[in-house]
Amino acid sequence: MRRSAVRNLCVLGLVAFAAAGARPGALGADDIQLVVERLREAGLTGERAFAFLEKITAVGPRLTGSPQAAAAVELTRDLMKELGLARVHTEPVEVGHWKRGDVAEAVIVASPSRAALPLAVCALGGSVGTAASGLTAAVVEVRSLAEAAALGDGAKGKIVFFNRPMDRRMADPFAAYGAAADQRVSGASAAARVGAAAVLVRSLTFRVDRNPHTGMLRYDPGAPRIPAAAVSTADADRLSALLDKEKGLSVSLRMNCRDEGRAVSANVVGEITGAERPDEIILLGGHLDSWDLGAGAHDDAAGCAAALEAVALLHDLGLRPRRTVRAVLFMDEEFGGTGGRAYAVAPDRKGETHLVAAESDRGGFVPIGLAVGGRDPKTLQRVSRYADLFRPLGVSFIVPGGGGVDVAPLVEQGAVPAAVMINAQAYFDVHHSALDVASSVHPRELELQAVILAALAYILAEEGT
Amino acid sequence: MRRSAVRNLCVLGLVAFAAAGARPGALGADDIQLVVERLREAGLTGERAFAFLEKITAVGPRLTGSPQAAAAVELTRDLMKELGLARVHTEPVEVGHWKRGDVAEAVIVASPSRAALPLAVCALGGSVGTAASGLTAAVVEVRSLAEAAALGDGAKGKIVFFNRPMDRRMADPFAAYGAAADQRVSGASAAARVGAAAVLVRSLTFRVDRNPHTGMLRYDPGAPRIPAAAVSTADADRLSALLDKEKGLSVSLRMNCRDEGRAVSANVVGEITGAERPDEIILLGGHLDSWDLGAGAHDDAAGCAAALEAVALLHDLGLRPRRTVRAVLFMDEEFGGTGGRAYAVAPDRKGETHLVAAESDRGGFVPIGLAVGGRDPKTLQRVSRYADLFRPLGVSFIVPGGGGVDVAPLVEQGAVPAAVMINAQAYFDVHHSALDVASSVHPRELELQAVILAALAYILAEEGT
Repeated sequence: MRRSAVRNLCVLGLVAFAAAGARPGALGADDIQLVVERLREAGLTGERAFAFLEKITAVGPRLTGSPQAAAAVELTRDLMKELGLARVHTEPVEVGHWKRGDVAEAVIVASPSRAALPLAVCALGGSVGTAASGLTAAVVEVRSLAEAAALGDGAKGKIVFFNRPMDRRMADPFAAYGAAADQRVSGASAAARVGAAAVLVRSLTFRVDRNPHTGMLRYDPGAPRIPAAAVSTADADRLSALLDKEKGLSVSLRMNCRDEGRAVSANVVGEITGAERPDEIILLGGHLDSWDLGAGAHDDAAGCAAALEAVALLHDLGLRPRRTVRAVLFMDEEFGGTGGRAYAVAPDRKGETHLVAAESDRGGFVPIGLAVGGRDPKTLQRVSRYADLFRPLGVSFIVPGGGGVDVAPLVEQGAVPAAVMINAQAYFDVHHSALDVASSVHPRELELQAVILAALAYILAEEGT
Repeated sequence: MRRSAVRNLCVLGLVAFAAAGARPGALGADDIQLVVERLREAGLTGERAFAFLEKITAVGPRLTGSPQAAAAVELTRDLMKELGLARVHTEPVEVGHWKRGDVAEAVIVASPSRAALPLAVCALGGSVGTAASGLTAAVVEVRSLAEAAALGDGAKGKIVFFNRPMDRRMADPFAAYGAAADQRVSGASAAARVGAAAVLVRSLTFRVDRNPHTGMLRYDPGAPRIPAAAVSTADADRLSALLDKEKGLSVSLRMNCRDEGRAVSANVVGEITGAERPDEIILLGGHLDSWDLGAGAHDDAAGCAAALEAVALLHDLGLRPRRTVRAVLFMDEEFGGTGGRAYAVAPDRKGETHLVAAESDRGGFVPIGLAVGGRDPKTLQRVSRYADLFRPLGVSFIVPGGGGVDVAPLVEQGAVPAAVMINAQAYFDVHHSALDVASSVHPRELELQAVILAALAYILAEEGT
């Protein structure tokens, strides 16, 4: 009976189990294989994840607290309704509200032997601005937080220039990013503690170009808040070369970014309610907020679009698994992670158990694997049994892992983290920069992520005891 | 002794075993791990494969028999010498010499209700031209060679329009390409056999755009040679929609492409001669010729650049493995495969045994796996033992396979085929079209292919009995 119901599905495409009155029980591996094939066929034919990404990015960059972030909440809530998802709603999130302003200028001050040289910079997220007239100070270059601390009085009144590149020798770009990001996150306070007036931080990318890359900084409560700007890699190299030649080289920096306190925004939630165990949740999530230099396409309209499309694909095939498959588009991953925390403790969570929380925040490039974590390897083992179904979708490995800022609070509560692993070789070329736009995403590569998420969610929501 | 020699290499980077007088014997797994790490570090730091690709593509498209193909032979021969490879030379190859000409126009003839509509077309490789005045004929659309044959007299004097798209539901783009390419390769003769005047063939790409994609056709000796053009996918869709509405719709086609007989060109060969078994060859190859609409960047300057860089990386580390590692840049993969055949039977092959022939002709996108074939699974097993070393380079699977047009004659003689498997989701977006230019290649993604080839060649040339 169940087998024939699935076969009908495959022939008719859109005939629902529910509509046919045939509620699925536990499925066999062959049934799941047929479902995964239908997901692949529908997904790759429609390439709808990219259409969703285009809608989200067309709103503009979605900095937390911005009108664009609010518009994206409305857009995706309406989109979930159009797609026919159940229990579509928003949940309030208190977010940071920082404004970049319209001035971010840095200039290497002219010397007797040369003209002034502009540097391509942008304020780091959360940075205070300079005085309206800017500040001008001698520059001292360091490669680490420790070197900055060791400057002692030598940093007083100066601009400390953090210039340790991402290590190109590392094959894993995320590892190289992780090994360099402390300069951006903690550089300002490290320099402020030894009396610096401001910091310039080399942009976190392998590429040498003139695009500055923004991102969050964290001010240490015990240190003065000083202005912090990212400088493009090409200009960082130029500045470093000049510092070797010119004693007392100075930079003028002017930025009118500012903190505007807190604002209220929202997470966006929609689902296919589980037919048998509606309170057991398989969550697919991305974050709706983004940095504001590009359009937040890879980071993370891609993750939102993949989660939306995964649930929509299941819905369109008329599948109603035993457990709930829920898409959550989190607000404020970039600016403090308040969305994930708000979701985890919202009143609606009462009585719900999040079995698995899959976060897509690794870009929209081609999927290469799956990571499934948790304290107990059981879920990883369950998913690994279906390796042969995932392989044709590009999943060449299934390993322990997963997780992310948005789902971390759920994982603390016991949810098993999961994530589609993505080729990241070009990710930091665009990450947090003006290059992160829809045209840098490939429709099929993104769609494969959605199909993999849909298959993963279906297996986890349908099979097992 | 051997271990300490390898450690020296790692510290000093460029100290050669040979220069140190320490000829390596069989290496341990730890030694090989150190070599692979040095290859990765040097490769990803320098990203030189992309620089090689830029040099090759800067010559222009390299259609067999063209001045650009000849220039690329000289360029890469000189480059091999500059890089310090041994026994650098060229070997003659007789190649096809077809000229695209400067006219390829197609227009949907005006009807009472609308103006004429231009179609973006290009001649398929090897096609005869039309009369100078062009030809105008009614169009009949088919989806397969069988449908064309079934037209019978209905095809007489008409333009047969092959319009079966690459099947987007297939996750593997090469499989989808393979399943649609018969229209391009054999469509002209299939239509000619039932009296058609010409063929239009839908371009082989998933994308819907206005870039026609060329590629080889094969005229059946038993059928008249009729003109054959590829039409862009967007225009194929438009033409198909109009054919549904307008009875007797005609297209005018004009092309002045022509066959110019045969020409002489060359394969380019350079190596690190094996220290103990110089006549046992591990071959790394790509093809130097290309189609002529773009710059042949992914197809196949990428493969040439990866092979060159792999051998250069080994050379720069001062490694001189027991067996020979040879780079061969084949001429004429696209236009008949004469380069691979000429290489296999050249006088220089006397006394040589090609153990492994790795062909890189799957584009310059990110590597995802390794394929190693042959009649005996022993080489696959040998390589698989090093899976842990390949994995950090992006090689998530090692499977039976490999091979390609250029190395097929060697494989017939007993060489084991091998290939780095590449993410191909975007490959057919650019393949054989004006979009196949250097800017569509990512330096790190290409470099990883070179590093993997270098590691593979080193293992196969150095270890084992």
